[in-house]
Amino acid sequence: MIHLLAAATLDPSDITRLMIALAVLLGLARVLGELARRFNQPMVLGEILAGVLLGPTVLGYISPVGMEWLFPASGYEEGRIALDSFVTVSAIMLLLVAGLEVDLSVVWKQGKAALLVSTTGMVIPFALGFGLAYGLPNVIGFGGESDMLMPFALFVGIAMSITALPVIAKILMDLNMFRSDMGMLILSSAMVNDLVGWIGFAIVLALISSGEATGGTGDLLVTIGLTLLFVGVMLTLGRWLVHKTLPFIQAHSTWPGGVLSFVMVMSLLCAAITEAIGIHSIFGAFIVGVAIGDSKHLREKTRETISQFITNIFAPIFFAGIGLRVNFLEHFDLLAVVLVMAVAILGKVIGCYFGAVWAKLSKRESWAIGFGMSARGAMEIILGQLAMSHGLISQKLFVAIVIMAIGTSMLAGPAMQGVLGRRQKRRLNDYLPDKSFAGQIQGNDRKQAIEQLALTAAKITGIHHSQIGEAVWQREQIESTGLPNALAVPHARLANLKQPVIVIGQSNSGIDFDSPDGTLAEIICMILSPESMPESQLEMLAAVAEAFHTEQSRRDCLAAANLTEFKAALATSARSEHS
Amino acid sequence: MIHLLAAATLDPSDITRLMIALAVLLGLARVLGELARRFNQPMVLGEILAGVLLGPTVLGYISPVGMEWLFPASGYEEGRIALDSFVTVSAIMLLLVAGLEVDLSVVWKQGKAALLVSTTGMVIPFALGFGLAYGLPNVIGFGGESDMLMPFALFVGIAMSITALPVIAKILMDLNMFRSDMGMLILSSAMVNDLVGWIGFAIVLALISSGEATGGTGDLLVTIGLTLLFVGVMLTLGRWLVHKTLPFIQAHSTWPGGVLSFVMVMSLLCAAITEAIGIHSIFGAFIVGVAIGDSKHLREKTRETISQFITNIFAPIFFAGIGLRVNFLEHFDLLAVVLVMAVAILGKVIGCYFGAVWAKLSKRESWAIGFGMSARGAMEIILGQLAMSHGLISQKLFVAIVIMAIGTSMLAGPAMQGVLGRRQKRRLNDYLPDKSFAGQIQGNDRKQAIEQLALTAAKITGIHHSQIGEAVWQREQIESTGLPNALAVPHARLANLKQPVIVIGQSNSGIDFDSPDGTLAEIICMILSPESMPESQLEMLAAVAEAFHTEQSRRDCLAAANLTEFKAALATSARSEHS
Repeated sequence: MIHLLAAATLDPSDITRLMIALAVLLGLARVLGELARRFNQPMVLGEILAGVLLGPTVLGYISPVGMEWLFPASGYEEGRIALDSFVTVSAIMLLLVAGLEVDLSVVWKQGKAALLVSTTGMVIPFALGFGLAYGLPNVIGFGGESDMLMPFALFVGIAMSITALPVIAKILMDLNMFRSDMGMLILSSAMVNDLVGWIGFAIVLALISSGEATGGTGDLLVTIGLTLLFVGVMLTLGRWLVHKTLPFIQAHSTWPGGVLSFVMVMSLLCAAITEAIGIHSIFGAFIVGVAIGDSKHLREKTRETISQFITNIFAPIFFAGIGLRVNFLEHFDLLAVVLVMAVAILGKVIGCYFGAVWAKLSKRESWAIGFGMSARGAMEIILGQLAMSHGLISQKLFVAIVIMAIGTSMLAGPAMQGVLGRRQKRRLNDYLPDKSFAGQIQGNDRKQAIEQLALTAAKITGIHHSQIGEAVWQREQIESTGLPNALAVPHARLANLKQPVIVIGQSNSGIDFDSPDGTLAEIICMILSPESMPESQLEMLAAVAEAFHTEQSRRDCLAAANLTEFKAALATSARSEHS
Repeated sequence: MIHLLAAATLDPSDITRLMIALAVLLGLARVLGELARRFNQPMVLGEILAGVLLGPTVLGYISPVGMEWLFPASGYEEGRIALDSFVTVSAIMLLLVAGLEVDLSVVWKQGKAALLVSTTGMVIPFALGFGLAYGLPNVIGFGGESDMLMPFALFVGIAMSITALPVIAKILMDLNMFRSDMGMLILSSAMVNDLVGWIGFAIVLALISSGEATGGTGDLLVTIGLTLLFVGVMLTLGRWLVHKTLPFIQAHSTWPGGVLSFVMVMSLLCAAITEAIGIHSIFGAFIVGVAIGDSKHLREKTRETISQFITNIFAPIFFAGIGLRVNFLEHFDLLAVVLVMAVAILGKVIGCYFGAVWAKLSKRESWAIGFGMSARGAMEIILGQLAMSHGLISQKLFVAIVIMAIGTSMLAGPAMQGVLGRRQKRRLNDYLPDKSFAGQIQGNDRKQAIEQLALTAAKITGIHHSQIGEAVWQREQIESTGLPNALAVPHARLANLKQPVIVIGQSNSGIDFDSPDGTLAEIICMILSPESMPESQLEMLAAVAEAFHTEQSRRDCLAAANLTEFKAALATSARSEHS
């Protein structure tokens, strides 16, 4: 979108080039983002990496001409304006989505514990960050004039205390802890963190603006007063009005189109208000997101449509664009990175640990909460980007913040797992190796079906098919494994099996596995678990049950012609992670 | 988004102003669009009207200062570039969505009839349009140099022959004919129309470019050859590759995010290719849309996420932007409007009529097909916009084309209804007047429940409640009206009732209406039909059954606290219109 605008006359060759640039940027950002996700790393890691590869750090080093051809933005005025504008719009949308994630009613339910964890979890990293920045401004990368030292230190303190709600939510879901007490405590503390942190950041922005403009302390107080008034009004009256308006819009307009437009219009208006107040437009979008996301009348589908579009189109271009504009090698400073990283992790983990202990949680739980809360992510990068564009921080510190944000996001999940001894929840797709798809079963006989699946399993496991077939058949005779809704899960434990594995067969005509509801089995999942991992059998059974919870998923899976289509059918009918 | 970019320095007051401008534009466009839809008119009518109200035609007339404050785009270079770019991106996205709607497999199924209707339905309006433009170029508004007369005449001919697939689909759904044979014939003919029409338009663009550039006939032939090659490759090899790639993406990436990004990247790349060939980028987006939309692996949810976002954010701003830039009063020319409108309607209706008769349809059906196909819409406006920006047509003709596009869209539905004697399908929401919501029923007795609903019905209809209650109770005693899934539909015909009406009651504890599946009724819909309209009873029963086809809709409706929330629950759980 941006680069389109860089062309002064928009002649065909410019349009061609700029569309290719956008396509390459978006494409690579998404591919690397997906790869990162495959290895359980935050998507933003891959997205920024795409920019690093295509920007001055790598492509610009290898082929300056190629980079200049694809991304000529750096050169001239129009390019800069367009880029600024796109960054502004993207940041507004990203903050809107972040705001939608905040659910104040969850916070109220958690009450005192959430307040304690979030307070100590903010105060300590803030203090450490403030101290670091005030004490060693040039070591970590102060970018402004000396009269900006106070805003700079405040900014670093706040950057240390804001968490990454979406990253944390994702980690909790992976560990199957999203709905647990501890999960809710972590989430609500993170929500308070974000709310307070962004208000604080708005005030820092006011400080910067008042420093930039000629206005004095009076102006500053007015700005801070108006900011707090805006937050107060939006989270009470505004929230109530949204809650009352949503049913009206849903009743009288196309759906979800009406709500979608309403959300956009509200975001733009509130962004305009906060911009007029003298803080940044993204703050208005965040607060309006909180106000709207809180309403139980906002349907899941609307939320998803908004966040899908923004997460998959705007965010990748935005983050890749960051990698594109900063030379990460040139501005990498080990000392700054180590200091920022150390303060970020220590401050958050220790802060939250004490808050949690204070709220009477066990020590182990408190450590887990500390590590969970230490995840930063996209938000810190947006924050840093704004601070850099205001000349408050240098590229050196920006690079350190980006690395810190990604590093903590990568660390939080494994650290929580380690402390709690929990494993990641696996889905059915994770148990299906190549060639685990047996296709249509011949005939309608249960024993024959098991034998056919055993043949497929033999190829994967290296165990002789007669041994597998016999073990499963013996188990089958003890108690039949038909499930309701045309599903069957013949299974066995095998001594010489190395990894838990599932083999899939289909039967259009159905095979009688003696299910409780009398249906014939159309999807047969043969579950094989190693004797050394007895718990894996139950986990696989749960994964199968979850995968086929809808009629739709069974129908799609039955129509699949190969393993890829089968996995696609499972993925596209998976329960939405939020609902 | 656009206007953001008009600010040369992006200082806070510019950002504030531009966000307000965008919010006002989007907000008004959506409100008027929804209003138009309420009166069964095309949304694009309301969207353009919003621009007309906010632009030079009205606001600029009343308060030039106000308009200049909100929309300063007309003044300076950056604004123009930004606007051009936004129009390009929006048009690409709109054409992508239009392409996604084209399903070639539907066309193959209809075979010869579709080919006949689409051929005569294109040739005749094309010939008339070409003749009009060639014969009276200045009367209708030729905008270019005299050597451009041939491209101009070709353009007008094509503008007369392209239909509006989304408008037609909507009309067919409203008339409950979407899945009928005639509906499929109309749709597939319209798809062929669009495909051929856009290829023709691409060739006209090539003609214009070769006229603009110094290149001669050789260049032109190369461009046309490349265009046809691109279409050929994309609709065979490209289509096959997409079909093979989609399951892989769905199996190995987040969903629907992965597919969403894939679609965007493909659109940008193909847009770049067609731009490089020398025709417009939107053509590439359209063809890629056709190639992708054809795959049965493209899930409905992905299609919907894309089209929701584009229809509700990009399209309204795009069309309102058109109203913003053209003074519709100043450039309104009655003769041009009448001529364009007459040729557009006559050409299409007569052309399709003969094609349909030729394909052995009855005369009445043939007229209906002619009227249905005569709907133009958004596409003609995009087409006109491009032609205007190339200096091929004057503002006068552009205004005439916009009016023709909207006028024919408004006419098509009622004309089809008239010819076929069909009425629009009404949904449950359409039968619920103000105060038709009785809320929670007291007690668990069937007769008492009917009496309570009769009280509510009495207030709406003016008929005494005892008369209503008695009629319904008598009917209830003949045969109980409990339906499966906790629903009951007590009903009666009343002599002195003017309009069919439904009254809603809820019961959390459930009331025994003796339903076949033994469930207690939780939602009770009392259906009252006038004796003079005996068919309305069955229509209302069907509307109730359709409204509560999912468990989710019943649960949401049961939780509704008033009529607005109830209507919102119905609207948000309605079956997707496409699926």
